[in-house]
Amino acid sequence: MGLTGELFIATQRVAGANGTFRAVSPATGAEIEPPFTLATVDDVEAACAAAEAAFPIYSNLPREKRAEFLEAAADEIDALGETLTERAMAETGLPHARLTGERGRTVGQLRLFAKELRLGEYLRARIDHAIPDRQPIRKPDLRLRMVPLGPVVVFGASNFPLAFSTAGGDTASALAAGCPVIVKGHSAHPGTAELVAGAVTRAAQKTGMPAGVFSMLNGPGNSVGSALVSDPRVKAVGFTGSRSGGTQLMKLAASRPVPIPVYAEMSSINPVFLLPSILEAKAEALGAAFVGSLTMGAGQFCTNPGLVLAVDGPALDRFLVAATDAVGVAPAQTMLSPGIHKAYESGVARMASSPALSQLAAGQEPGGPHCGRAALFSIAAKDFIADAEGHSEEVFGSASLVIRCADADEMLSVIGHLEGQLTATVHLDESDTDVARKLLPLLERKVGRILANGWPTGVEVTDAMVHGGPFPSTSDGRSTSVGTLAIDRFLRPVSYQDIPAALLPADLADGDAGIPRRVDGKPTL
Amino acid sequence: MGLTGELFIATQRVAGANGTFRAVSPATGAEIEPPFTLATVDDVEAACAAAEAAFPIYSNLPREKRAEFLEAAADEIDALGETLTERAMAETGLPHARLTGERGRTVGQLRLFAKELRLGEYLRARIDHAIPDRQPIRKPDLRLRMVPLGPVVVFGASNFPLAFSTAGGDTASALAAGCPVIVKGHSAHPGTAELVAGAVTRAAQKTGMPAGVFSMLNGPGNSVGSALVSDPRVKAVGFTGSRSGGTQLMKLAASRPVPIPVYAEMSSINPVFLLPSILEAKAEALGAAFVGSLTMGAGQFCTNPGLVLAVDGPALDRFLVAATDAVGVAPAQTMLSPGIHKAYESGVARMASSPALSQLAAGQEPGGPHCGRAALFSIAAKDFIADAEGHSEEVFGSASLVIRCADADEMLSVIGHLEGQLTATVHLDESDTDVARKLLPLLERKVGRILANGWPTGVEVTDAMVHGGPFPSTSDGRSTSVGTLAIDRFLRPVSYQDIPAALLPADLADGDAGIPRRVDGKPTL
Repeated sequence: MGLTGELFIATQRVAGANGTFRAVSPATGAEIEPPFTLATVDDVEAACAAAEAAFPIYSNLPREKRAEFLEAAADEIDALGETLTERAMAETGLPHARLTGERGRTVGQLRLFAKELRLGEYLRARIDHAIPDRQPIRKPDLRLRMVPLGPVVVFGASNFPLAFSTAGGDTASALAAGCPVIVKGHSAHPGTAELVAGAVTRAAQKTGMPAGVFSMLNGPGNSVGSALVSDPRVKAVGFTGSRSGGTQLMKLAASRPVPIPVYAEMSSINPVFLLPSILEAKAEALGAAFVGSLTMGAGQFCTNPGLVLAVDGPALDRFLVAATDAVGVAPAQTMLSPGIHKAYESGVARMASSPALSQLAAGQEPGGPHCGRAALFSIAAKDFIADAEGHSEEVFGSASLVIRCADADEMLSVIGHLEGQLTATVHLDESDTDVARKLLPLLERKVGRILANGWPTGVEVTDAMVHGGPFPSTSDGRSTSVGTLAIDRFLRPVSYQDIPAALLPADLADGDAGIPRRVDGKPTL
Repeated sequence: MGLTGELFIATQRVAGANGTFRAVSPATGAEIEPPFTLATVDDVEAACAAAEAAFPIYSNLPREKRAEFLEAAADEIDALGETLTERAMAETGLPHARLTGERGRTVGQLRLFAKELRLGEYLRARIDHAIPDRQPIRKPDLRLRMVPLGPVVVFGASNFPLAFSTAGGDTASALAAGCPVIVKGHSAHPGTAELVAGAVTRAAQKTGMPAGVFSMLNGPGNSVGSALVSDPRVKAVGFTGSRSGGTQLMKLAASRPVPIPVYAEMSSINPVFLLPSILEAKAEALGAAFVGSLTMGAGQFCTNPGLVLAVDGPALDRFLVAATDAVGVAPAQTMLSPGIHKAYESGVARMASSPALSQLAAGQEPGGPHCGRAALFSIAAKDFIADAEGHSEEVFGSASLVIRCADADEMLSVIGHLEGQLTATVHLDESDTDVARKLLPLLERKVGRILANGWPTGVEVTDAMVHGGPFPSTSDGRSTSVGTLAIDRFLRPVSYQDIPAALLPADLADGDAGIPRRVDGKPTL
């Protein structure tokens, strides 16, 4: 399992001829061996050509074959075991337990999509039989299924080196859909990427996939990513990262001669609403639990609670005392990369210098380089509304802003000033139901997931999960990047009219195809 | 049912204060009374404000209520009867039978979406129950459904004054989804638009819909359309028209502070493949039937067969003799508008002046103004490939180009040079199966619908229809604008985590909700 620093192009390890780079340990600031090679435009061309060549073969494999590939990839990643966890720890500074959990999530995702392939409901198969004697003209036989878009480019994410990078949710759902994947590795964790890319490659070989089904390239700066997104053979893009990075990809994709969809998961401050009755009853417990969610993983979650809204008064004061105490004892934590740490520090400094904000608490002093200290601020609702856009800017890390609202109506009115979000959380008890009835429809328009009495930082990988939301939380609020519905992003419908049975796809044949279908207007299982 | 020339803003008839215009009879070139008023920016503002105000109410109505509204709209349109058909004939030059059929399709669409609402499968409801004792942490209760995007702008289409205009497929599917609709009327048929808008408005009033659920504005030039698409309250756009118009809307929508989806159905030349065995067996019959499809409705269908591919030889010659004969006797037909006629004439002139093209046939001389004559051209495959983009430009009307291919392989190779299309048609018999097996996967990547042994100009409104296709046939190949799957365009998923039963949407409640759902991983009916 020694790292070679090579790229993966269509199951071959290839040394990139565009220079090298090394990972940097966020814990020490030191470079980590070995050097990793960077891709040239020729490597991009080779990966795109291979993906294009693989597509007609891969997309037409029986669903069971693709499921076996995904499961084999999961097995290979499992087999990497501690080698993978330790490399990821060194490159990201994330703790062992977190990365062990993330590895489990990653293989769980691959296996979940294998199950989704076998279920086949994602095909949305429909059959409308002909009516030969319909007047004035015969009704033709029409059958519909979803087909894959084509080769997909996936950008590795800094904050999920396993679950949203090389073989993460975007890759798993695109491969499940039938799309070859080219991963643009994240420069912060190239060793992790190489280990996982090796696992996927072995799985592809063992299960007889066409070589171009998977490639992984590292690139200098944005050039390789831009070249991939601009390539005419690429048909969709998955990205998790910053708003500026995501919107740049959106612009690039929209300006192509043939525009393609970009699924970018960008920024979110995940408002938390503390309704009056539960706040009165549980202020201290909520304050402590909030800080637990805020500081988990140094706050480096897309769903980190960056905004808290409550009606001002003694109960909120009690919440804030508890939260302030908890932040005060929160240890500084190594952040994912020097760049992310620097951006966090400047974001917190910006908040601290805002006249409208009061800083309530700061976490413990850092004991090493690139450690983020938690930070808690408050603001009056009217001041927030006066510059909602400025005060809504995500500070990626464990910083949060509490909005003191004059009353429940003002709390509701703040929602109109918020941008699209991945999540909104409501803490409530039965006595809060009336306020919640007004609140929930407003939140439904703004977010992809509404939680009650929990914290947004846990994201279950399951059928009913939505990890998505209106712009700018994602580029395309019609989609989710987590959960089985994520496969939809890489599909489009095709209709087959009067196609002879010998030429019809098996999933659209008459008789029992073993998948849910709508036949002559009636859903069948 | 007298026409007033007014706009419709939230069930009120309002005279626009931005000047007036009259419809022009394409049959005579004369203006038709009465004058129609044009909207100001204030009218746009009023319509958007009303749609926004209606959205929270309309989107949360029980599905049955929205279904009743759609059915009432169908009934009101039916009740317009000959008044509607005659006005549409005067404004579009389309014949009585065609418009009677189109009226039937329009009310059929509205009723089909009412049925879709009752079925509820479009909600894609999913329930994953909590697992309280899961280790290491409790699995939360998660439930998912699709929710409507918000107010939608629909542009009326010149070529379907009923089925793709004021209460056409875009409007019906957006209203079904739960989105208020603002129609930008097409300037070629304002009287038709007013009649239909009146019908929808009466239906909204009779069924107790919030006023802003429907508005209809006429506008001078592009200003009203641009203002609507730029309005922050508008969340999606439906459009059927030219490629330049569609791509302009795409750019406008992508450049908004919050980008929104544009579903533009733009241009397609709908290749028809005549495979060797069937061509040998039925050359003459195919030639005649082809011209029937080509000249139907003066060729003014999005799915008009503008390209024919076959292997060169005696069988193709027989096909061309039959087609040439049929074109030669085809009467010139009044086109939809003077502008469309002019564009057709210049498109045919461009084809005629191309050195690579041979003109095989022209239809009968026109007997009046704005009449389009059918035109048939041929080209060698190698010449087509040498400038595929130029030769693929849609000439909207009854003009078509036959590509003579050296052999079946060359015919297949042409596909790689084609842009995305709404449809592809294959004529084949059993002896053509081997060629068809190679052909179909290539077509699947290029088109939204593949037909065998028919003609693309009929578009069934049914569950399994796809009227869509890769760019530039539409702006977004992941969607269809015809058939029940069209509702998907106006929806996005929302997940509800641990929401108390009292606050859950009825469709996500425990017990039998009467709709298909996936519960704990298992599809249920």
